[in-house]
Amino acid sequence: MAIITLTTDFGEKDHFVGAVKGAIYSELDAVRIVDISHTISPFHLTEAAYIIQNAYRSFPPGTIHIIGIDSELNPENKHIAVFLDGHYFICANNGIISMLVNEINPEKIVEINIHDRVSSNFPVLEVFVKVACHIARGGTLDVIGKSISEIKQLTGIKPVVNSENNQIMGNVIYIDNYGNVICNITKDKFNDVGKGRDFKIVARTATFEKIHTHYSDAINFDAPPERREEDGKKLALWNSSNYLELAVYKSNPTTVGSASTLFGLGFRDTITINFS
Amino acid sequence: MAIITLTTDFGEKDHFVGAVKGAIYSELDAVRIVDISHTISPFHLTEAAYIIQNAYRSFPPGTIHIIGIDSELNPENKHIAVFLDGHYFICANNGIISMLVNEINPEKIVEINIHDRVSSNFPVLEVFVKVACHIARGGTLDVIGKSISEIKQLTGIKPVVNSENNQIMGNVIYIDNYGNVICNITKDKFNDVGKGRDFKIVARTATFEKIHTHYSDAINFDAPPERREEDGKKLALWNSSNYLELAVYKSNPTTVGSASTLFGLGFRDTITINFS
Amino acid sequence: MAIITLTTDFGEKDHFVGAVKGAIYSELDAVRIVDISHTISPFHLTEAAYIIQNAYRSFPPGTIHIIGIDSELNPENKHIAVFLDGHYFICANNGIISMLVNEINPEKIVEINIHDRVSSNFPVLEVFVKVACHIARGGTLDVIGKSISEIKQLTGIKPVVNSENNQIMGNVIYIDNYGNVICNITKDKFNDVGKGRDFKIVARTATFEKIHTHYSDAINFDAPPERREEDGKKLALWNSSNYLELAVYKSNPTTVGSASTLFGLGFRDTITINFS
Repeated sequence: MAIITLTTDFGEKDHFVGAVKGAIYSELDAVRIVDISHTISPFHLTEAAYIIQNAYRSFPPGTIHIIGIDSELNPENKHIAVFLDGHYFICANNGIISMLVNEINPEKIVEINIHDRVSSNFPVLEVFVKVACHIARGGTLDVIGKSISEIKQLTGIKPVVNSENNQIMGNVIYIDNYGNVICNITKDKFNDVGKGRDFKIVARTATFEKIHTHYSDAINFDAPPERREEDGKKLALWNSSNYLELAVYKSNPTTVGSASTLFGLGFRDTITINFS
Repeated sequence: MAIITLTTDFGEKDHFVGAVKGAIYSELDAVRIVDISHTISPFHLTEAAYIIQNAYRSFPPGTIHIIGIDSELNPENKHIAVFLDGHYFICANNGIISMLVNEINPEKIVEINIHDRVSSNFPVLEVFVKVACHIARGGTLDVIGKSISEIKQLTGIKPVVNSENNQIMGNVIYIDNYGNVICNITKDKFNDVGKGRDFKIVARTATFEKIHTHYSDAINFDAPPERREEDGKKLALWNSSNYLELAVYKSNPTTVGSASTLFGLGFRDTITINFS
Repeated sequence: MAIITLTTDFGEKDHFVGAVKGAIYSELDAVRIVDISHTISPFHLTEAAYIIQNAYRSFPPGTIHIIGIDSELNPENKHIAVFLDGHYFICANNGIISMLVNEINPEKIVEINIHDRVSSNFPVLEVFVKVACHIARGGTLDVIGKSISEIKQLTGIKPVVNSENNQIMGNVIYIDNYGNVICNITKDKFNDVGKGRDFKIVARTATFEKIHTHYSDAINFDAPPERREEDGKKLALWNSSNYLELAVYKSNPTTVGSASTLFGLGFRDTITINFS
């Protein structure tokens, strides 16, 4: 059965998400609709890019992903459908899937051109749903758009390596539900530049000289509970998406604090790795 | 396959929504359950009325809509099931579907009378689910209630036209996820009263003399980006539900502000259209 | 068709929930995934325990419940699968299902031992999903773990009865979406200790001498609306889960206030019932 996922900034209160689901079920009976996220900050392309990049991989090949952020059609914002890594993505050409496209070459990109009958300010409902259902029924991208070769790039999502090749300067691209801080430096990039050298991560006043793989690494389980020196339980780790994450063990942003609140880090702030 | 939608003020944290879904699946195997909204402000009938009115239309005919707001049975709050515009609605008779009933004549309204076995303070779980599953199995409304002809009306959801027929006085009925302000004046009402005359919309200090159809109309795409005069990017438009909406292009209530915060407009505030 | 429910503290914005659903659909085509809650406060075991206890009962026998809270594998936090009351629960052995286990004897508990291939910091995705899909396909618990007889207990979830048997001292275990205050004293416990005696409930400055069964009991519907003496509309009642709940009729924590805000009660605060 076809799967259509939804990633939007519609929020969970308004009628938008429900209406989109109704429209899909009106066209297709045999389909699964899966919510990925509807609480992306309004018009926040980087958040959406990070979320869709990390969610889509778990879905079976052939899954159709609707991304409804900043999707109003205008002279500077066209609609596209992309086939990449075995998955379909339907969104505006606003940079939202450039994180994906930079990593994996798309097999096909089309600019959607079925707008002649549509005169709405709810393009996800009227355009994206139609395209998704077309694909779910086995239709090809060529029928709903013309091939293009380039998409718009999102700025600030790639880290910068200095000319001496001993520093990676990245940025915070996402703060997760636990207040953990995710940075645009991947494990691959780190290994590529670092080549096993010692290093120091600097994020404002916080520094880290080791990158872990589990949050529990912040705790010394060999010591009895009352004697554990846990260094505020802070740590750097490769998260489940292989991005550099600064975290606090068992954090809670609204009570005990979190990496974001304790280190004073927000979206776009700089995180640097210096190799020695 | 039958579709049952859920619109409630249960919130998304508590066990209520999960329990209701479990109860439906316990009765029916072949059914789709679709969340419309669970984050309606507690007991806010107007919000619920606006949301269900705008969501239901996208669903296929025969869809069954459970509305779980202020649904405790008491001498002044009976349970009803309504068949209207090809859809079924199950809710309390508290005015919640009067916005629908005022627009489209219901084919059938019954007051539910299957409460003899029920003794709970969770009527959605014990009564509405039973009624919904009964309908989903092809049962008729007559089996679960007695016909009535009138339902309770919600106050303050209709705009007022003055006796000179040159002014519509409406109210804010909803603030959406982007902080856009939705008013109870519809495009039909506007055309009906205005008959093409010039007009001025007044909402506190903000005024508008044109009603657009796309958010992007706030931007002059012919000018180079640095020269665009965008008037704070504010605009009035007919939203996708054909209600008058006051909006700010690409607003975000928690960062750059929104129509609601910038114009100082909240639920029930007055919006006036003066025709010249 | 198998049903897998999800109860987590992942929040609704991040990619975690979507990724887990994708992983399930990648393994199983014929399955229903139902969200119970994803907005449990981070690492809040008592909240999760209360929610899963009250949601699971509505689902059909054989339902598989994934509980993703504090689930990282470490020397003090093993993974378990439990078969109890006809339902399967997959979670960490951190006390989260001790509320269930204290009430109903589990038929089988296994400590999951399929971790040899897994090296992730996202155990719900990599371990719990595998176990859930194994069970959904009809697999037995013995294949994925070794039997154990005891699970970790959550502290502070049982009320205390004094030696004179005339007082139950309980605690707030949950605040619901309406700001109602739920206490760990059940109707069974109350009847068991009280045996029909008169009583007084004391919660800070608020006192109650009657326990109702409907929120509407706060209102005297026989009196005309303007003459109703409603005592601030506060009441104590047995909620739909048969826990003692202190409530305010038609409360809204963000506007008119609620039991939690008006009585000044938060998580873990004491509520006492004195019998005379």
